[in-house]
Amino acid sequence: MTLQQQIEFLKEIDKLKTVIRQTHIVDESRQENTAEHSWHVAMAAITLADYTDEPVDILRVLKMLLLHDIVEIDAGDTFAFDEIGYKDKFEREVRSAERIFGILPDEQGTAFMALWREFERAESNDALFANAIDRLMPFLHNMWSDGRSSWGQHNPRFEQVYHRNATGAGRASSKLWDYIQQMLDKAVADGWLAAPVES
Amino acid sequence: MTLQQQIEFLKEIDKLKTVIRQTHIVDESRQENTAEHSWHVAMAAITLADYTDEPVDILRVLKMLLLHDIVEIDAGDTFAFDEIGYKDKFEREVRSAERIFGILPDEQGTAFMALWREFERAESNDALFANAIDRLMPFLHNMWSDGRSSWGQHNPRFEQVYHRNATGAGRASSKLWDYIQQMLDKAVADGWLAAPVES
Repeated sequence: MTLQQQIEFLKEIDKLKTVIRQTHIVDESRQENTAEHSWHVAMAAITLADYTDEPVDILRVLKMLLLHDIVEIDAGDTFAFDEIGYKDKFEREVRSAERIFGILPDEQGTAFMALWREFERAESNDALFANAIDRLMPFLHNMWSDGRSSWGQHNPRFEQVYHRNATGAGRASSKLWDYIQQMLDKAVADGWLAAPVES
Repeated sequence: MTLQQQIEFLKEIDKLKTVIRQTHIVDESRQENTAEHSWHVAMAAITLADYTDEPVDILRVLKMLLLHDIVEIDAGDTFAFDEIGYKDKFEREVRSAERIFGILPDEQGTAFMALWREFERAESNDALFANAIDRLMPFLHNMWSDGRSSWGQHNPRFEQVYHRNATGAGRASSKLWDYIQQMLDKAVADGWLAAPVES
């Protein structure tokens, strides 16, 4: 029974391959789906693991990155700068997490749910680094495409992109945050992102 | 310089999202790509980690599963039952591994290369379990689609599918191998796979 539940879960999460994100893949032929994004952020975490300010358990970071977007199967992908969509994002995602992780045997479903909640709370060192990587990746996609990966379609404000990564890499990795800030200057200089509004 | 090499590597491996496999995703709308497959096998390893016959280091298993298919960017996906393609598969993949992992700083590139070779050798407990999971997933896809995921197009012989998993789960997880053997009986009974040839 337990194995059958786990195999049913693995079938269910295949649907993440059909959830479409705003980001385009590097060759710009299409938007990416959330399953392949989840692989890419996991590879980024492995590759950039040495840049954390605080020690992390990289296995827990990987588990969070691999499973945290599964809730998008029911809740859809909410674009990072969609302020209306964000209003009920968490509520929609909790319901999705309960349904999908609920397919698993109780103990395992509870453990996955706890990892998802830890990622969302973004307080532990592991969750902070996982969030930093998750927010870095769409930023890199825009750097790789002269801003066409998602900024070109959505025109986020400089302050939004800055804040998204200040609360990502800015809280977990001073080296990655330094790099992002340099790249933000370049994005403005090259016209991929509008200059910040003087306050 | 180091970070720049790592970011260049993360850009390069985005191409894995455009490598197409023979397996179809569960809703049968399209074939899957290798990046999303890599995510799915990583999730399967986390979900099924308790079924190993021998203790494994699940972090090493995950790293192997996440990175072992990156060689397909240059070498393409070789279908599991393509006997001609398999003849020079390893040689093509070594060249690809050297180029792509070579983008990374030396120490990290060498470490990734070693993990890839360990997966390919399939001798350590970690590599045996990683191989078991990697071979299980297309099998499950066929079970989920009444054999249409890839068997329907390619008509592998029963002995090929049996051998593929006997050298996968059969060497790493007696519980998963028991399950696969039951499902193989079902696949034959339901006509998704031709009955084994009597010898």
